[in-house]
Amino acid sequence: MIKVGIVGGTGYTGVELLRLLAQHPHVSVEAITSRSEAGVKVCDMYPNLRGHYDTLAFSEPDAKALGAMDAVFFATPHGVAHALAGELLDNGTRVIDLSADFRLRDANEWSQWYDQPHGAPELLQEAVYGLPEMHREEIKSARLIAVPGCYPTAVQLGYLPLLEAGLIDPSQLIADCKSGVTGAGRGAKVASLLAEASESMKAYGASGHRHLPEIRQGLGDMQSNPVGLTFVPHLTPMIRGIHATLYSSLIAEPGDLQTLFEQRYANEPFVDVMPAGSHPETRSVKGNNTCRLAVHRPGNGNTVVVLSVIDNLVKGASGQAIQNLNLMFGFEENMGLSAPALMP
Amino acid sequence: MIKVGIVGGTGYTGVELLRLLAQHPHVSVEAITSRSEAGVKVCDMYPNLRGHYDTLAFSEPDAKALGAMDAVFFATPHGVAHALAGELLDNGTRVIDLSADFRLRDANEWSQWYDQPHGAPELLQEAVYGLPEMHREEIKSARLIAVPGCYPTAVQLGYLPLLEAGLIDPSQLIADCKSGVTGAGRGAKVASLLAEASESMKAYGASGHRHLPEIRQGLGDMQSNPVGLTFVPHLTPMIRGIHATLYSSLIAEPGDLQTLFEQRYANEPFVDVMPAGSHPETRSVKGNNTCRLAVHRPGNGNTVVVLSVIDNLVKGASGQAIQNLNLMFGFEENMGLSAPALMP
Amino acid sequence: MIKVGIVGGTGYTGVELLRLLAQHPHVSVEAITSRSEAGVKVCDMYPNLRGHYDTLAFSEPDAKALGAMDAVFFATPHGVAHALAGELLDNGTRVIDLSADFRLRDANEWSQWYDQPHGAPELLQEAVYGLPEMHREEIKSARLIAVPGCYPTAVQLGYLPLLEAGLIDPSQLIADCKSGVTGAGRGAKVASLLAEASESMKAYGASGHRHLPEIRQGLGDMQSNPVGLTFVPHLTPMIRGIHATLYSSLIAEPGDLQTLFEQRYANEPFVDVMPAGSHPETRSVKGNNTCRLAVHRPGNGNTVVVLSVIDNLVKGASGQAIQNLNLMFGFEENMGLSAPALMP
Amino acid sequence: MIKVGIVGGTGYTGVELLRLLAQHPHVSVEAITSRSEAGVKVCDMYPNLRGHYDTLAFSEPDAKALGAMDAVFFATPHGVAHALAGELLDNGTRVIDLSADFRLRDANEWSQWYDQPHGAPELLQEAVYGLPEMHREEIKSARLIAVPGCYPTAVQLGYLPLLEAGLIDPSQLIADCKSGVTGAGRGAKVASLLAEASESMKAYGASGHRHLPEIRQGLGDMQSNPVGLTFVPHLTPMIRGIHATLYSSLIAEPGDLQTLFEQRYANEPFVDVMPAGSHPETRSVKGNNTCRLAVHRPGNGNTVVVLSVIDNLVKGASGQAIQNLNLMFGFEENMGLSAPALMP
Repeated sequence: MIKVGIVGGTGYTGVELLRLLAQHPHVSVEAITSRSEAGVKVCDMYPNLRGHYDTLAFSEPDAKALGAMDAVFFATPHGVAHALAGELLDNGTRVIDLSADFRLRDANEWSQWYDQPHGAPELLQEAVYGLPEMHREEIKSARLIAVPGCYPTAVQLGYLPLLEAGLIDPSQLIADCKSGVTGAGRGAKVASLLAEASESMKAYGASGHRHLPEIRQGLGDMQSNPVGLTFVPHLTPMIRGIHATLYSSLIAEPGDLQTLFEQRYANEPFVDVMPAGSHPETRSVKGNNTCRLAVHRPGNGNTVVVLSVIDNLVKGASGQAIQNLNLMFGFEENMGLSAPALMP
Repeated sequence: MIKVGIVGGTGYTGVELLRLLAQHPHVSVEAITSRSEAGVKVCDMYPNLRGHYDTLAFSEPDAKALGAMDAVFFATPHGVAHALAGELLDNGTRVIDLSADFRLRDANEWSQWYDQPHGAPELLQEAVYGLPEMHREEIKSARLIAVPGCYPTAVQLGYLPLLEAGLIDPSQLIADCKSGVTGAGRGAKVASLLAEASESMKAYGASGHRHLPEIRQGLGDMQSNPVGLTFVPHLTPMIRGIHATLYSSLIAEPGDLQTLFEQRYANEPFVDVMPAGSHPETRSVKGNNTCRLAVHRPGNGNTVVVLSVIDNLVKGASGQAIQNLNLMFGFEENMGLSAPALMP
Repeated sequence: MIKVGIVGGTGYTGVELLRLLAQHPHVSVEAITSRSEAGVKVCDMYPNLRGHYDTLAFSEPDAKALGAMDAVFFATPHGVAHALAGELLDNGTRVIDLSADFRLRDANEWSQWYDQPHGAPELLQEAVYGLPEMHREEIKSARLIAVPGCYPTAVQLGYLPLLEAGLIDPSQLIADCKSGVTGAGRGAKVASLLAEASESMKAYGASGHRHLPEIRQGLGDMQSNPVGLTFVPHLTPMIRGIHATLYSSLIAEPGDLQTLFEQRYANEPFVDVMPAGSHPETRSVKGNNTCRLAVHRPGNGNTVVVLSVIDNLVKGASGQAIQNLNLMFGFEENMGLSAPALMP
Repeated sequence: MIKVGIVGGTGYTGVELLRLLAQHPHVSVEAITSRSEAGVKVCDMYPNLRGHYDTLAFSEPDAKALGAMDAVFFATPHGVAHALAGELLDNGTRVIDLSADFRLRDANEWSQWYDQPHGAPELLQEAVYGLPEMHREEIKSARLIAVPGCYPTAVQLGYLPLLEAGLIDPSQLIADCKSGVTGAGRGAKVASLLAEASESMKAYGASGHRHLPEIRQGLGDMQSNPVGLTFVPHLTPMIRGIHATLYSSLIAEPGDLQTLFEQRYANEPFVDVMPAGSHPETRSVKGNNTCRLAVHRPGNGNTVVVLSVIDNLVKGASGQAIQNLNLMFGFEENMGLSAPALMP
């Protein structure tokens, strides 16, 4: 049994960590911090946790208490992990950061997109990008994990087989992505009200979104040519789920794309290549850590369309964080993550 | 490891049994029947089951194959269990019926509400009504279980402490109930389309619903006076969940109602009495077998209001069926049912 | 053409007034105030109004400018109309208040429920409660209208025929009400987020809600005995709509309830008695000023159940306000209110 | 006052015609046909029409009765208008067909996509494609109108300014489209149930959809080069609305795209170019005949992204049909179509 802490546990990724870890046989959540809710029991805030965490309460962040943990998750806005990660690592505590703090390798690029200096550039060297399908071996020995963003996870897993095989033009990629509203977090914003966001669909950030450089970096790691990506996210009237529709142009004779995808992911526990001709639904991964994929080539033409769905709070955040923890501590990779999706 | 079969597995209670049993360490689903889908793999119909039941396929109902099981669930329309249960019981297979076939003790009353003769009156004597909070001991030794309906579960658990304590007038009960649309089943009906049922609320069956005699019978078992119940169900624009708002009139000085409820359910693993003043949300039990309750006495007056929420597919059907199976086979009562609700 | 102003126009009742008045041939909206949004064009905040109000902008509240109007609507939180109504009336401007400021005739009772002194008790004498089905003649000559609340409108119209006819016991009324989330206003609250409020149902205010005294007063005006009412509102996962399910006990032989309702409302342009056996849907009045009713007597017993649906923003607020304005200024009662509901 | 009939009035485009025409001062709906519902009053099927069409009932299709109309709308599955249009035209009745029967100019291409012979190729010559922004003058004098499909309307209006100006490569177009569920019609299909389609997002028809040839033909009419289009529609959990996200590559220096769009649509009553940087929401056109557009050039690069939203039942079907009727009969183009969208 290992001891873990969660920093910033009041948001959706925090409660989702608690939900999933309640089913993990080798993890005990010993601390969860929140300045605003210090003293409140987690089950008073999230009644679904009644009977599962009846005594755990939010506490003030305390580096010493966190340093007594085997691992600490950061479920915080950007900037917080910068300030605390170094001290925890020095204490021998492993850090799994769900925020954007260590996702970009280039501190300057980070500063541009987040409008502030990078707070811990000295840690960038050792941070491992926690996409197991790309970096499983580095993750196993990592001390500091940057858990990928939700859109980047769905997009990278969709393009990965095509880019590794050199079949598509990396300079002409289009990722049209649709996300449920939990992607916008638990903040009280008018635009996220049921009265505003349901019965409607809209794009946002069409001229630039913070996940763009992260995706570009990841796609760049899959092959050696410059990446040109147009990324348009959309707000969809549902609670959970991301649907990425990925367009690309063939630059080589592709052979059988279905086989390519099936072989690339044959041993991946959390990537499911659907049968040829399928259209995966986001609800098929609701509450679950799987990414489901389908690949199409309309009219047998030059364009390849990949459909990629995940639960933004699970494979897109807290589930993937636990998958990383399992790899880091030598547990079965699917420990705590084995329940089927909730459908209907 | 026990072997179980499911008759009529294409509906929502069927897939929900599969979802929950995938997490049960001592149960193996060996057969699932469907005339219309015979030959189809369950994971082709329900992609959330991919990776969990990769070979299980629907088969034609076959009494012999089913008779080789330790237990068989009926997730069928009414009438089907009547025809098959007797033979299975004779073979030593226990029967857990999620339909209405054995819920009413009086075959004539059953006939009236279901417009056909009762098909197995000889089994009524031994059928046990599978509400563990009322009949746990009989369930343990039962061979044939009638799993309660969804509305009856929410309503009975809400009134139980009050009626047992003789505090309210059983002749003047009003149960105003709101259900998600899965309560109407997976049939393709215009009224259940998203375009018809979302962004709207309506009552139905205001002049009489088949759950009424079942609830009346259950409430009658809690005390000795005649029951008068007005029951109005409503269709609510959500997938899962029942919210029962239960009104009754005090006939005795009640003392502390909060304490009464907490004590009555102190040892119940699947009934959660919320703190005084609470308003339970159906989402707090989404995918979960808990019934959450709160009791109010507005203005300290003569009316008691109980708020009772369940997931209609779990505590209102498949979860409760597994809870019964656990009791019948001596497993921990919460086996396969321990995951927290999905929230948000 | 009359000139009207709207005080506090950024909330849902404000934009709904604008939407409906865009179709009114005899009304010109000349001013709309908002401290927080002064200077912003209404169509920049509400793009559905582009092409309808291309120049109208929010302005600072200014009693002089408002005093130049023929009528002013208050779409404000409580307390604001108290402060401004008197001066406007002195200027000859008629006031139609959508807030709670003048709904209760008893200033002390108002103070108790709203936790502050009543700010204009001298105006209570002349304020008319703007439920046309009860007070049409007074409305025609009124200078100050208190537009009924949303729940009170649905509940009063449902009980009205029964109470006027002396058929039910006014001391034992139960109103179980379900509202869409716009009833909670446009404030940015976590509980109103799509991620929190959709896919769920919950009660609130079970121990006391500010609409209770208003309903009690209204029901008291329909007959001469004391009113005992249990009122439980519920938050429903939809944008618009109220469904009131109204329970009462017969104290006299009722005759034909269907006929009673049809006759009572035969000449009412905005009350629609559905055929016997109906279950009105809230979507049948989406965007529309109608209240649809159905009356049931389950099992021909002692309990009468009335189902009453309105759009909380139309008949429950802005539409009813315009209906009042039409009566006050001698326009056809349905002017600007004649479009059918949006369905599906 | 002109007399109109509706063939096939039980679907969503039929009831939407009735809803909109209820507000049209110069149109009287004299007949509405449905084989399955003959004899049923329209307001019994659609309670939102109570008080608006209290006597109109569905009748058996009857060419003679329809021939007495000034105009007939076909709100039918494909093939029906083929059979009846010719006779009506011979009688002097104008035909406005909301189905796909006359949208493709090439009868052979029609046959391929609809798997049956074209039933009225002799009428193709005179059929006018009813997109007023492209063909207003022909519409005015037309006898037979093919109302554009929902996706084709949103896509064509988005690409029109760019293609007419020769700024983008017509051979590399990608239209990623999201539709509410009414786009799938009122048929009782499992996939359209609230329990299946809400809380989820999925693509469909990724390998080929019947709207593809229609869009291709329309885009071809805007310029002289061959069109290459990838079109992927998605099912979105909302009732109404289409959001088209349109990608294209610049082939010429574009100048100011915002100005280009504003000028192209300056005189169009039903196309609204939003301010630069906007992201139109589908709810901003709910129930309304407007197409709202925004144009983006992410990172000032080579890709242009157009966001285009319509209500699929209004500008995507019934509203556009009425817009055509207004043009054909010399009414104001926005007659019956002037109400603002319902928001929230």
